[in-house]
Amino acid sequence: MQYAEPINNLIKAISRLPGIGEKTATRLALYILNSKKEYVDELSSCLLGVKDKVTLCSVCMTFSDTDPCIICKDDSRDASIICVVSDYKDMMALEGMGGYKGRYHILHGNLAPLKGIGPDELRIHELISRVDSSAVKEVILATGFDSEGEATAAYLSRLLKPYNVKLTRLASGIPVGSYVEYMDGATLGRALEGRREF
Amino acid sequence: MQYAEPINNLIKAISRLPGIGEKTATRLALYILNSKKEYVDELSSCLLGVKDKVTLCSVCMTFSDTDPCIICKDDSRDASIICVVSDYKDMMALEGMGGYKGRYHILHGNLAPLKGIGPDELRIHELISRVDSSAVKEVILATGFDSEGEATAAYLSRLLKPYNVKLTRLASGIPVGSYVEYMDGATLGRALEGRREF
Repeated sequence: MQYAEPINNLIKAISRLPGIGEKTATRLALYILNSKKEYVDELSSCLLGVKDKVTLCSVCMTFSDTDPCIICKDDSRDASIICVVSDYKDMMALEGMGGYKGRYHILHGNLAPLKGIGPDELRIHELISRVDSSAVKEVILATGFDSEGEATAAYLSRLLKPYNVKLTRLASGIPVGSYVEYMDGATLGRALEGRREF
Repeated sequence: MQYAEPINNLIKAISRLPGIGEKTATRLALYILNSKKEYVDELSSCLLGVKDKVTLCSVCMTFSDTDPCIICKDDSRDASIICVVSDYKDMMALEGMGGYKGRYHILHGNLAPLKGIGPDELRIHELISRVDSSAVKEVILATGFDSEGEATAAYLSRLLKPYNVKLTRLASGIPVGSYVEYMDGATLGRALEGRREF
């Protein structure tokens, strides 16, 4: 026996979410079926809300419900330093740390030619014109240290070289709390290469 | 830094779902933020759809988008046998087995005085009038074998005794594929008590 069609549709729609299989989707759909109408209305309007009310900040390209976003609006933050990240989540992780007082630029991805993601799919053009038109002194390349993140950083560094800015890259090495013996060769190589005076 | 308000609202709404913590809710909310408008519209309308289009079958009290539901409408199914289950999911599990050709009655819970669930909170009244008014020959009490399910079955059996129906209970014993050595004493006691000729 099949579930009634509206239930089945909901199960299918939920199971398209990442990391949610059919069993979990069924459990959630039945929970929703049993829950109060007010909650379902709220959940539904929250879903539509993120698509309707959240847009990209026209300066740094982050997701925001204001334009410019609260970081780009904040005069206490140093506009001459731009930290370039691949993703909104990376920005949130760096903000979570709390020590950074510059601004951001979100690329919305990494270069990945095999997946059809070239420079035009990312917010690179916006970064270049930002560096070109405002008094930017330093660009921190904070894309990931996986191959796509590295390639993106290398590409951006070539692109930004003609502009009179200091280009830096986040340090690569052994994470805090990790043991040397468990690190891979590439990380150890980076850690050794980037060693600092004690 | 906080997420933009609409994103935060969505995270909160999602994290109220069972088994979904704040981390998973954040991951899902950001996935939704990045996904196509069409998908979000579809998900939202599916959510509203289960509440708008799915109601209770007026005969057996199951969730259905038709009234009566497809089982109660199906003349090939024996209307003289009613299998009483606590929950819609229990009915779906029994239907999944495929061997049962009678009808159902869904209680929507078990008696649980400590949680404030008494007979009036369940669909017991509807069961009684159904047994009273139609030619029901057998009522199978198929509530669970946990303490609440057992108490509910016992309560229903007392309530249905005055009516001229055969009352049965699902067999309790060792599940298929299980080992005797791992069974608890209560299950072994039931299995011994209910032993059948080989």
